[in-house]
Amino acid sequence: MIKVGLVGYGYWGPNLARNFAAQPDCELVAICESQSSRIALAKAHFPGVRAVEDFQVLLDDPKINAILIATPVSSHFSLAKQALQAGKDVLVEKPMTETVAQAEELIALAKLSNRILAVDHTFLFTGAVQKMKEIVSSGQLGEILYMDSVRINLGLFQQDVNVISDLAPHDLSIMNYLIDKDPIAVKAMGVCHAGNALENVAYLHVEFPNDLIAHFHLNWLAPVKIRRTLIGGSKKMIVYDDMEASEKVKIYDSGITIKEGDIDAIHKVNVDYRTGDMIAPKLPHREALSVEAAHFLTCVRERSKPLSDGIAGLRVIQVLEAAKLSIKDGGSRVLLSKGSE
Amino acid sequence: MIKVGLVGYGYWGPNLARNFAAQPDCELVAICESQSSRIALAKAHFPGVRAVEDFQVLLDDPKINAILIATPVSSHFSLAKQALQAGKDVLVEKPMTETVAQAEELIALAKLSNRILAVDHTFLFTGAVQKMKEIVSSGQLGEILYMDSVRINLGLFQQDVNVISDLAPHDLSIMNYLIDKDPIAVKAMGVCHAGNALENVAYLHVEFPNDLIAHFHLNWLAPVKIRRTLIGGSKKMIVYDDMEASEKVKIYDSGITIKEGDIDAIHKVNVDYRTGDMIAPKLPHREALSVEAAHFLTCVRERSKPLSDGIAGLRVIQVLEAAKLSIKDGGSRVLLSKGSE
Amino acid sequence: MIKVGLVGYGYWGPNLARNFAAQPDCELVAICESQSSRIALAKAHFPGVRAVEDFQVLLDDPKINAILIATPVSSHFSLAKQALQAGKDVLVEKPMTETVAQAEELIALAKLSNRILAVDHTFLFTGAVQKMKEIVSSGQLGEILYMDSVRINLGLFQQDVNVISDLAPHDLSIMNYLIDKDPIAVKAMGVCHAGNALENVAYLHVEFPNDLIAHFHLNWLAPVKIRRTLIGGSKKMIVYDDMEASEKVKIYDSGITIKEGDIDAIHKVNVDYRTGDMIAPKLPHREALSVEAAHFLTCVRERSKPLSDGIAGLRVIQVLEAAKLSIKDGGSRVLLSKGSE
Amino acid sequence: MIKVGLVGYGYWGPNLARNFAAQPDCELVAICESQSSRIALAKAHFPGVRAVEDFQVLLDDPKINAILIATPVSSHFSLAKQALQAGKDVLVEKPMTETVAQAEELIALAKLSNRILAVDHTFLFTGAVQKMKEIVSSGQLGEILYMDSVRINLGLFQQDVNVISDLAPHDLSIMNYLIDKDPIAVKAMGVCHAGNALENVAYLHVEFPNDLIAHFHLNWLAPVKIRRTLIGGSKKMIVYDDMEASEKVKIYDSGITIKEGDIDAIHKVNVDYRTGDMIAPKLPHREALSVEAAHFLTCVRERSKPLSDGIAGLRVIQVLEAAKLSIKDGGSRVLLSKGSE
Repeated sequence: MIKVGLVGYGYWGPNLARNFAAQPDCELVAICESQSSRIALAKAHFPGVRAVEDFQVLLDDPKINAILIATPVSSHFSLAKQALQAGKDVLVEKPMTETVAQAEELIALAKLSNRILAVDHTFLFTGAVQKMKEIVSSGQLGEILYMDSVRINLGLFQQDVNVISDLAPHDLSIMNYLIDKDPIAVKAMGVCHAGNALENVAYLHVEFPNDLIAHFHLNWLAPVKIRRTLIGGSKKMIVYDDMEASEKVKIYDSGITIKEGDIDAIHKVNVDYRTGDMIAPKLPHREALSVEAAHFLTCVRERSKPLSDGIAGLRVIQVLEAAKLSIKDGGSRVLLSKGSE
Repeated sequence: MIKVGLVGYGYWGPNLARNFAAQPDCELVAICESQSSRIALAKAHFPGVRAVEDFQVLLDDPKINAILIATPVSSHFSLAKQALQAGKDVLVEKPMTETVAQAEELIALAKLSNRILAVDHTFLFTGAVQKMKEIVSSGQLGEILYMDSVRINLGLFQQDVNVISDLAPHDLSIMNYLIDKDPIAVKAMGVCHAGNALENVAYLHVEFPNDLIAHFHLNWLAPVKIRRTLIGGSKKMIVYDDMEASEKVKIYDSGITIKEGDIDAIHKVNVDYRTGDMIAPKLPHREALSVEAAHFLTCVRERSKPLSDGIAGLRVIQVLEAAKLSIKDGGSRVLLSKGSE
Repeated sequence: MIKVGLVGYGYWGPNLARNFAAQPDCELVAICESQSSRIALAKAHFPGVRAVEDFQVLLDDPKINAILIATPVSSHFSLAKQALQAGKDVLVEKPMTETVAQAEELIALAKLSNRILAVDHTFLFTGAVQKMKEIVSSGQLGEILYMDSVRINLGLFQQDVNVISDLAPHDLSIMNYLIDKDPIAVKAMGVCHAGNALENVAYLHVEFPNDLIAHFHLNWLAPVKIRRTLIGGSKKMIVYDDMEASEKVKIYDSGITIKEGDIDAIHKVNVDYRTGDMIAPKLPHREALSVEAAHFLTCVRERSKPLSDGIAGLRVIQVLEAAKLSIKDGGSRVLLSKGSE
Repeated sequence: MIKVGLVGYGYWGPNLARNFAAQPDCELVAICESQSSRIALAKAHFPGVRAVEDFQVLLDDPKINAILIATPVSSHFSLAKQALQAGKDVLVEKPMTETVAQAEELIALAKLSNRILAVDHTFLFTGAVQKMKEIVSSGQLGEILYMDSVRINLGLFQQDVNVISDLAPHDLSIMNYLIDKDPIAVKAMGVCHAGNALENVAYLHVEFPNDLIAHFHLNWLAPVKIRRTLIGGSKKMIVYDDMEASEKVKIYDSGITIKEGDIDAIHKVNVDYRTGDMIAPKLPHREALSVEAAHFLTCVRERSKPLSDGIAGLRVIQVLEAAKLSIKDGGSRVLLSKGSE
């Protein structure tokens, strides 16, 4: 029986609590939260769980094996560090830390103390992303040529982070998971319409070796909600549309046609919509966070490397940090240093 | 009765021929084309129209009022110049010329000789773009904050131009028509996957004063055909989806919500899909090229300024030229000089 | 403070429990359930609520004002009757009873004892149906000419009822709510593919006076999930698509065109997709069952008539009973007697 | 070289003319049309083709091998009969004749005189229907259990036929083509809203042996255009959506789940959207009428049986005739006699 403590019972904390509480061989034993109204809520939802204000209580409890961190990002580093130092395994909300340096420190600390450090990149545990990983790994796409992602929202402006920090971690974690290469440079552009210094429409451009590019459109000011990623391969391509109820992942034959002299052939291609069959594989219907919770518990139990570990968290933050630099510098190209692996 | 001559009977020429031939008070009197198989086709389609190989025949025919140019872009400048010098009004295919300098020379020549110079930006004459112009002009969008356009295709690679030159003129002409401001700078990024030097996936970023931006995703290597433009305004927003059969233009309330402290309110907004009514206005079902032909003939008859005149053609070429520079220079920001107006 | 007891903690019971427990001025005090594994679940979900096996405990508890019945349909009549006789107000799952006679007895009993009798037609409390009721009531549709509904599922076969009894109550309750007329006759056709006597594909046809018809396609063996209703009016029409994320209700101008002699006009209409604007009104995002619970509690408190009362329950059962007769008789027309109002 | 004459240059005639004129080894030599404005149009479109008012001219011309009939349905029988008697092969517009008796007479006459008699059921020659035929024939659907078709339009009312006669022939010809069985009975229901005796909303129900049913919703008064057919098989199912640009045919695994006692399993299935992969095969992009013209010419040349012959035409008319009887008799079941094969 693994015993977990949760810190932070705001927007995402209740989801972690519910999913970990429902896992077999796992017990949610404590919830730490500073706001009294949220403590009351935690008590109502989980009458049998100890609800406290002081994080030290969790650190001091020797029965607690692992700590889940779902607080604002500015506290991630400090809380995770304390938890690791107290000998706890850690699952921390994305983005893992505010800076690359903090991320590297946590990774080193976890390595040194032989603790599990995992980052909650929930999307990696969806049936859709798991299926795409399977397809990419099988080689059936051929060489991956580009990734293009649109993640645009309906007018909910955050007040502490810009749209890149808010939305891009999802796409970047998926990018890193599917593309088995290190990005080499980043460019970002954005504008603010809310009278503060936080961009609400932004474009992020990530370069890889060999002309592979990834591009992200992130937007809080869109009339419609779009969550769509294209992955172009030399043999096949994927359309991943997270707003689709049942056909989230579609796989198409690529079918490039080079325009030759024949005008009628050109015209024919122009009006053609597709060059091969399309397959929409059945995806499992399950809550990603539940799969992730089970995976984290397995890692704790078996002392194995999490699918989304500290390195995965770091790689996302490296791009976010470079994007901030680029935006400040008018969209200039910012080189990425190699990861700390 | 206005008499027109057409030069170029390749992919687009037949459409011009058919639409001008069908206009009242207009007669298509001659078609000039260098390829013999295409001449034969022109003769078969229009038995009563004179089909010639020599462009000089059209220039020398005093009955011809106007010349339609539908040849490859490299010949646009020379043919249009000769036509204007011969005293003909001119409608030239997009892009108007290969360079800004050529475009400016044609504009000056047309002005000097008091001839009509129009560019075939067909999309401006669609019911959808006309409706959007009406909406934008009415002020109901409030201030325009951004334009984002995706125009991606299914694997038809051109062999003489890159994807920006091929696809962006459509979007740029719409941008210039709807946004009543001069762009100030351009950035472009792209990659080639066909082993030549022609980009097939590209992103174009256009800056305007006051944090207004326009962004374009242009792609020949997409698994699906998407033609969608978002126009974000401070009061309302437009989604223009050209692949929709009947609801190409949708107008949404903007409804920005600033995230305050209330977690439940935030959550509520997050799961909300929309913040107001949506209206999809009825659009007229008509062939844009027929509307454009009628408009051009009216301009010829009444000596009035075409909606899509030489200046409109120039403005598109200015951005294309800056984009080429930017792509060569690794995506650097290229300033646009003011138009020649 | 209204105190409610719930009987039945199977598939739907937990939803009722959760929603009533969350209402202000309401307390869920007891849950009755015969299966021990489900009792255990009820205890886990609602630690402070008394969980019992014996329904008599709820009847005998003088603090309990109202009883919620979420058991299999065969027990609805008996449980509701006992609850009404014990002086409790009652909310019963749909369909209210197995037979018209039972429904009429409950209605009479509720009237006699001055108790509230409500039926859980949840769809009536959705934002979509409420919006449609508002539109219909405003008269903007003109005269309602037809209703056509498709409610088809993905291969989940029930073992105790046929597809009409399973799925049609939703549509019939909406029909009765929106159309302010009594149906006069019913025809039904269906086939069984599961080797039992329970139809899994069925069509239900309901006649009203003045050529108003309603038609229902109900299907457990469909490859896709469709939940779409058309309501045709002489002035406007509604498309209600419950599978749409955000635009569930769309209102169209009707725009009938009578074919005259002009071939080109006919052709023009044929290729036209729409004859007027379309409006998709913003719908509130709220859980229908929560709205319904609040409404029921208001009725209990103010002794007012529920929107979905015993008569509403009876009207659905009248059509279901007629449909059974029709199907047995090869699809013959079965007249409906007038309601007991 | 096969020489064809066309009678009727109204709505559909020009399409036949254009497609036959474009076939190799075929010459359109004459067009017969009674309306002078339409004759003028025929002359303008086909300057080299003889345009006449008198059908006898076509009959008397020994060079004409085949006659295409695209006149109003009331004249089909008489014109086709004369053409067959004059020794011509015949392609006649759908529906082939007004009555079953007429259809049988034409079939007998064609057989006797050894002439080709084909009916223009254009849909059979679409890539979508051809693909479905291939799938059905392969046996991968298992046993076909039902067909459900919705063909609804936007407010174009015909003045001479009801909505069944106007729209159902398309679906019935597809039904007969795909389902290799004879239907045994028909029921039809409909209402008129235009003040005449012509139904504009109708439902048609066709019974086959072994609980196979086909159902059709036909409607001129719909707010949206829907053309969708479901074909349910015991192993796989098809969704054929003719309004889709590129994915008109989708094949799904059937995956029936029988509801057992397990509530959570039931719930799981309920929220599941699909039980297997979906495949949307690439369909050829070609004009169906062009394929049909080529096929007809091959039959003429090789004296072979057309895919859509007189028997196919008759089978459609048998159902239409039964539907008329049923509607008049309040939706009663009308038995179909066996075909004349």
